[in-house]
Amino acid sequence: MNRIPILKLQNILLVSIQIDPSDVTIQALQEDILKEISRTGAKGILIDISALDIVDSFMARTLRDCGVMAALLGATAVITGIQPSVAITLVDLGLDLSGINTTCDIDSGFEFLQANGKDQLYPYSE
Amino acid sequence: MNRIPILKLQNILLVSIQIDPSDVTIQALQEDILKEISRTGAKGILIDISALDIVDSFMARTLRDCGVMAALLGATAVITGIQPSVAITLVDLGLDLSGINTTCDIDSGFEFLQANGKDQLYPYSE
Repeated sequence: MNRIPILKLQNILLVSIQIDPSDVTIQALQEDILKEISRTGAKGILIDISALDIVDSFMARTLRDCGVMAALLGATAVITGIQPSVAITLVDLGLDLSGINTTCDIDSGFEFLQANGKDQLYPYSE
Repeated sequence: MNRIPILKLQNILLVSIQIDPSDVTIQALQEDILKEISRTGAKGILIDISALDIVDSFMARTLRDCGVMAALLGATAVITGIQPSVAITLVDLGLDLSGINTTCDIDSGFEFLQANGKDQLYPYSE
């Protein structure tokens, strides 16, 4: 099984999914992300899927669950780089990413998390 | 062969090597990094090896070459997170990382590249 690397920059975890991952890999990623949030106290998690042309229902559900679980640990999740074809498929299949933030690319996702972390979600942190 | 993902944030390519890579993987990473610099016009490349306890001579040479090649394409390379045991091994074996910048963690490497990109290497860019 391939493990997808998680990179911590400032308060934010960065994940880039660049090859179509198996169900086991994506499940392991979810666990790794939650462990890393818990270990590092990260306040944001950015998952880039711009390299993926296909997202199946399992992956969509796992990513959404990951966002909800991250929120329970005090972190905001953002999915970036959803391809037009992926957006069409998600809506056509009735797959639901509600409750998770999305932006068009990594840079805007990173800015969103930096702004969110400081101003809205954690008003008492510096 | 596993390919190591390369993530672009602002003008900087981020790479995190988290499992001990084979020679073929590290060679492919070198090619991927150079292609990405050429494609995106990135001005910095950060390679984090904090998860590695062992760096062999091939990997050390490939990473150093990668830094020199990146410089030819106009990008600055930084290797971050060299473990104490790796530093000891590199010096004991006489392996040479001269000509490549190193910092202790990703955050400081990122800051170094941002400062370098703006002030020193590209004085005419905004």
